[in-house]
Amino acid sequence: MTVQLYDTTLRDGSQGEGVNFSIQDKLLITKMLDDLGFDLIEGGFAGSNEKDTEYFQQVQDLELKHSTVCSFGMTRRKGVVAKDDTGLQALLNTNTKACTVVGKTWDLHVTEVLGVDLDENLAMIADSVGYLVSEGRRVIYDAEHFFDGYAANPEYAVKTVQAAQNAGAEIIVACDTNGGSLPERIVETLQAVAKELTIPMGIHCHNDCDVGVANSLAAVDAGAVQVQGTINGIGERCGNADLISIAANLAIKKGYNVLNGQGVAHLTELSRYVYELANMNFRSNQAFVGRSAFAHKGGMHVHAVNRIARSYEHIEPERVGNERRVLVSELSGRSNIVAKTTKHKLDEDPTLMKKILDRVVDLENEGYQFEASEASFDLLVKKCAGTYEPKFQRIHYRVNVETAGQTDPLTEATVKLKIDGDGPIRHEVAEGDGPVNALDTALRKALLETYPNLESMHLVDYKVRVINSTEGTAARVRVVIESADQHHVWSTVGVSENIIEASWLALVDAVEYKLFKDEGEIAGSGD
Amino acid sequence: MTVQLYDTTLRDGSQGEGVNFSIQDKLLITKMLDDLGFDLIEGGFAGSNEKDTEYFQQVQDLELKHSTVCSFGMTRRKGVVAKDDTGLQALLNTNTKACTVVGKTWDLHVTEVLGVDLDENLAMIADSVGYLVSEGRRVIYDAEHFFDGYAANPEYAVKTVQAAQNAGAEIIVACDTNGGSLPERIVETLQAVAKELTIPMGIHCHNDCDVGVANSLAAVDAGAVQVQGTINGIGERCGNADLISIAANLAIKKGYNVLNGQGVAHLTELSRYVYELANMNFRSNQAFVGRSAFAHKGGMHVHAVNRIARSYEHIEPERVGNERRVLVSELSGRSNIVAKTTKHKLDEDPTLMKKILDRVVDLENEGYQFEASEASFDLLVKKCAGTYEPKFQRIHYRVNVETAGQTDPLTEATVKLKIDGDGPIRHEVAEGDGPVNALDTALRKALLETYPNLESMHLVDYKVRVINSTEGTAARVRVVIESADQHHVWSTVGVSENIIEASWLALVDAVEYKLFKDEGEIAGSGD
Repeated sequence: MTVQLYDTTLRDGSQGEGVNFSIQDKLLITKMLDDLGFDLIEGGFAGSNEKDTEYFQQVQDLELKHSTVCSFGMTRRKGVVAKDDTGLQALLNTNTKACTVVGKTWDLHVTEVLGVDLDENLAMIADSVGYLVSEGRRVIYDAEHFFDGYAANPEYAVKTVQAAQNAGAEIIVACDTNGGSLPERIVETLQAVAKELTIPMGIHCHNDCDVGVANSLAAVDAGAVQVQGTINGIGERCGNADLISIAANLAIKKGYNVLNGQGVAHLTELSRYVYELANMNFRSNQAFVGRSAFAHKGGMHVHAVNRIARSYEHIEPERVGNERRVLVSELSGRSNIVAKTTKHKLDEDPTLMKKILDRVVDLENEGYQFEASEASFDLLVKKCAGTYEPKFQRIHYRVNVETAGQTDPLTEATVKLKIDGDGPIRHEVAEGDGPVNALDTALRKALLETYPNLESMHLVDYKVRVINSTEGTAARVRVVIESADQHHVWSTVGVSENIIEASWLALVDAVEYKLFKDEGEIAGSGD
Repeated sequence: MTVQLYDTTLRDGSQGEGVNFSIQDKLLITKMLDDLGFDLIEGGFAGSNEKDTEYFQQVQDLELKHSTVCSFGMTRRKGVVAKDDTGLQALLNTNTKACTVVGKTWDLHVTEVLGVDLDENLAMIADSVGYLVSEGRRVIYDAEHFFDGYAANPEYAVKTVQAAQNAGAEIIVACDTNGGSLPERIVETLQAVAKELTIPMGIHCHNDCDVGVANSLAAVDAGAVQVQGTINGIGERCGNADLISIAANLAIKKGYNVLNGQGVAHLTELSRYVYELANMNFRSNQAFVGRSAFAHKGGMHVHAVNRIARSYEHIEPERVGNERRVLVSELSGRSNIVAKTTKHKLDEDPTLMKKILDRVVDLENEGYQFEASEASFDLLVKKCAGTYEPKFQRIHYRVNVETAGQTDPLTEATVKLKIDGDGPIRHEVAEGDGPVNALDTALRKALLETYPNLESMHLVDYKVRVINSTEGTAARVRVVIESADQHHVWSTVGVSENIIEASWLALVDAVEYKLFKDEGEIAGSGD
């Protein structure tokens, strides 16, 4: 059976805190959703702002293969004739083939929030849907607060959706607007209401009870033929139901036909693309598509995964476009290292493998972790294999932080290096917002003349963790630095009792990785 | 009906990528879970590492009011007598009243991964459970891969749990180890298996299908009397089922009795406390406890929400210890502030309350968080109330980190202070393992003659978090320092672009709090 996926990332999703798509972002996402086979794409709130108006104009020039773009709006205002209502006019002006109209289901909202009597709300629904249908539009009716409304006054709730149906809506979408329902309530309500309707129903859930996906799946089993949600579940409060998880579960676990049967294999790509455009961090533990979703840790375990993957993975990661990942961690055994070193093609040299493993174990005992620092791991492999030549040698560095009274401290770093192990000596000084910033600036200043490609590299993220911290400030510190150039992102790690030294070690690895990578001496896949 | 909550944050949760609790963290979390009424706390994997061994030793000195601490381990190895098995011995050596034993359910895992025949696995289960019971332990049996195992070979799966039951286990916990099950499979399987058992069942879910919470709730409705999970759903891959959402749903939505009926109102505090100790960022869109979970958009009238909150909120945020937030006005932390000022008895002074609130909002915008730093908050209250007199004034400090070649850096700090605001000047210098350690040592050296009671105070923990980290090393840094004397433990916070300055601010608060506390000017309950 086919289930329609209705994406509202661009409308309801953009209500999420900190989410802000440009017109270009919205058009790019629209194209990607179409490529993957989403049935309906809610592009924006008609007439609510310039950006959405502009989007609806420009989206008409995209040649979509599969998706229908919808514009979103509310029922007419009270006491206004439908054709004179500015909101409905804005919907028509978008020129989308389909319009989604949201109306009130809950008597409390009708009388207390809208301030109209119950019959006027029914008329508002019927007039709005009828007018858009008479103008040749397909109308999807979103019944707001449907489950709360039905619980409070079932007869009235049914009347509202019958009003939309009788005026020509093609589908009634039951919205759990406040996100407070659990699956059993979703199922009972949908089954009861379906009996009162002749047109199909859809579902629109939010995640306030952490069951938005389960609610959507339960609704489909109860007969819903359309699921509304957002990519990665972005949206206000706790977000909308996540269409990524919903699509994967419907297709792989429950055997429904979604996304033309093909888009599911690209869900990981879609998820990350939307995060990138929304300028949000990936959620590494996200179901199906997260970087850790198929990550394995622990030696024995990894050995077994390589032998019979299904014994430790609920699906093959490739089915959603994701991949298996082996974490190098304190519990790592030989098989983890083997998996990680595949790209170095060292698996035929057991002596070297043992050397690497011993070195990893030693460093892990010192507080290193390579799970999130693959670039440092790649350098370690080079060092063990004897193919590492230092790009420079430190003669000394000095960092000085000094205050006078209550003013902000002055920070200065000096770095003295010998280039290429045996080349010219560079001695540079720099200021910074803090000691690491100053050190980083001085280091680059000392290297840039010899290695101009460092210009294109910059720090993306800096993380600090105190380990064995029960000894207070004398504990060890682990610093992880994420760096990027135009092509790659890589992470490096340094550990010391001294945070400055730990930062220095991670900075040096970051720079050396960049240089080796650009020389083709390390496969550039260090993220 | 009462449902037992079994927390495995300290064991299964610590398998999560990047999660690494110190012994002190584990003890603090244990205490908090006990305070909130969790029934069982799985403290670690017996004998797997030094930290867990040390934890099980130290946890015996905590006087827990409600919780039972469990140690976790596997069934005996093949071909070994139970009493000679090192794993079972390690379980006994933890001295916990209850032991959780995990064993294989899935025939595939028995033959292909363990490499033993099906009968030997049954013997391994029976022997292990029986031996621990004969040694006077309560045994919880975790049936690994239960749902996959039952699907593959239901007869054998039932035999494994009957073996555990007949050997004296008090409960059979069905584990969806790979996280691949949906609610309907959970329900069908539990109902079928319950008929074959005379002891109760529990549930242990993972979130690989994004339905870990829904699965756990469905299991309870199907008769499970114990739910295993982790705080904030931390754990490997996509995490464990989130006990925060599960507890809130069970208590508020489904009417079960959990956490003695009282802990649910503190779930937000618990969630943030665990994030802080794990050095992870809060998830603002987290169900129930996220900062955005009850956030209302600026456009909406605060008045309307206040008038009929239930029209826009699925529950009252206070029921889980969270609060309503209006996004335009940054009134974060209000109820916390009110709650936290109780001991200062300021609630009858609305002007002062407003002043404190404004100050907290300003500092939060700079990156401060007082959730886990109550001592700094207490000092802030004193400062707003005008009852604060500085114990000393800084004239300057200087920190110098210097290397020569590849040797460890030399670190030196100097501190110059005026005692008591207007007393003698002290100028001291100290070395340290790192800049913060040197600074701390110099500061104490300068203060000890005037304030000899500082001798009894020491640093327990030191945490660093980079905030707004997308700007690289120029981002702000938040330092949290935990200090202790014979009677109390307290935490202080400092924020700056410069990690040395942030550490200084937290160190100064730590020292001043100690001095005020010893003078009776602050109620000594700062942890």
